[in-house]
Amino acid sequence: MKRIESVKNSFVKKMKQLYQRKHREKEGLFLAEGFHLVEEAFNANIRIDQFIVQEGTNLPSRIPFSGFELTIVSKEVMKELSSTETPQGIIAVCHLPEEEKITIEKGKKYLLVDGVQDPGNVGTLIRTADAVGLQAVLLGSGTVDPYNEKVIRASQGSLFHLPVIKGDIGEWMKTLQAKGIPIFGTAIEKGTSYTAIERQKEFALIVGNEGRGVNKEWLNKSDQIIYVPIYGNAESLNVSVATGILLYHLNDVR
Amino acid sequence: MKRIESVKNSFVKKMKQLYQRKHREKEGLFLAEGFHLVEEAFNANIRIDQFIVQEGTNLPSRIPFSGFELTIVSKEVMKELSSTETPQGIIAVCHLPEEEKITIEKGKKYLLVDGVQDPGNVGTLIRTADAVGLQAVLLGSGTVDPYNEKVIRASQGSLFHLPVIKGDIGEWMKTLQAKGIPIFGTAIEKGTSYTAIERQKEFALIVGNEGRGVNKEWLNKSDQIIYVPIYGNAESLNVSVATGILLYHLNDVR
Repeated sequence: MKRIESVKNSFVKKMKQLYQRKHREKEGLFLAEGFHLVEEAFNANIRIDQFIVQEGTNLPSRIPFSGFELTIVSKEVMKELSSTETPQGIIAVCHLPEEEKITIEKGKKYLLVDGVQDPGNVGTLIRTADAVGLQAVLLGSGTVDPYNEKVIRASQGSLFHLPVIKGDIGEWMKTLQAKGIPIFGTAIEKGTSYTAIERQKEFALIVGNEGRGVNKEWLNKSDQIIYVPIYGNAESLNVSVATGILLYHLNDVR
Repeated sequence: MKRIESVKNSFVKKMKQLYQRKHREKEGLFLAEGFHLVEEAFNANIRIDQFIVQEGTNLPSRIPFSGFELTIVSKEVMKELSSTETPQGIIAVCHLPEEEKITIEKGKKYLLVDGVQDPGNVGTLIRTADAVGLQAVLLGSGTVDPYNEKVIRASQGSLFHLPVIKGDIGEWMKTLQAKGIPIFGTAIEKGTSYTAIERQKEFALIVGNEGRGVNKEWLNKSDQIIYVPIYGNAESLNVSVATGILLYHLNDVR
């Protein structure tokens, strides 16, 4: 157990660098902050390097902290390290999981995310995919890194519940189609209202950036293009909201 | 037309205070930033006090700027005034609308928001209510002010499309029930899955804070309590996502 009281300590600097993707990848580490996320990471068997704990923080008994390296920090250091305005006083320094290879299976459901940059939206998409019980989420190029602290926070731990994989949407589509799993692209143009679509025992849904939408190439290769109709005066829906509506509609749970 | 080049100018200080609710209410003003929101405010006949424009910004021809007071500011001043990391160079200083009194009508649909603090969620709720074509949104006590800059941004202009009213949820419920409009509270406990609920020609939906949920008193007085089932491992859905699913399900557009 070490103690750190100065924000100028090199450990503090090193940990803060983990808010940048390149440093996360170089070090193979990421940060999960707050009681809920720390517990979710622990329960999901994420390899934890150490815990950073603010002095005086009451540690929850559900995690056997004694088996881990602890770094005790002052309130000032925690404030410096934290990505939130009101730190809860605990951060888990976690090892990035090995690149997962998953096999696409018949009878399963997938979400493909094309170029969504907003970390809150991506975290919420992962949380929604988890709630619906999808098999995996694929993040295509141009989508924010899932180990970004805002993605982790918005996912509310769902990032640790199901495979969230960085990959090539085109490659996944080929495999999905080879297996005969229907792919639904999302766009208003040339689209069918989701209300006209039957529930599906297996499917993949592709959602895109709110501004640009889903890449035309993926739309052209989709089996069907669907959208959520607007009945009022909004120009569009938030991508997480639209995805929630589509996933809950498509998802055949009978 | 005046020019301001110093961030220490008293005008800059006064404008920045509008990021606080108490100053918005004292001055009767709020800020709408960026081309899209400025245009939405203009189109919605929001009374515009003046525009603040960064020097060199290309003004869209769709707004007759010549009819308004313009304050031209340096890049540094705009950066100081802006609530975004990459300012678009335009802010409309708008008058807060008069307190709207709306009459609750048979055959219409309403969203009641109980104690939701997160401005991004409240903005997204307003945007979704607008997309569904609801009649009005009521923000009960404990809910963030709709003229908070993050609410305005997340609402994507929908705040200017339909009445968004601060009020007392208990009072609204009395009026809704006197008119025979069914009220759906949201909670997992004692709730019915939304999938078992018919589409509705008129309704009010009450949604609450993600942590605390909807006030028990309002739940007890609701005609029915509904929820969105979780099929996977997430503990819950984001409130905006759950609300989107419920509103699109309940909304009978036939």
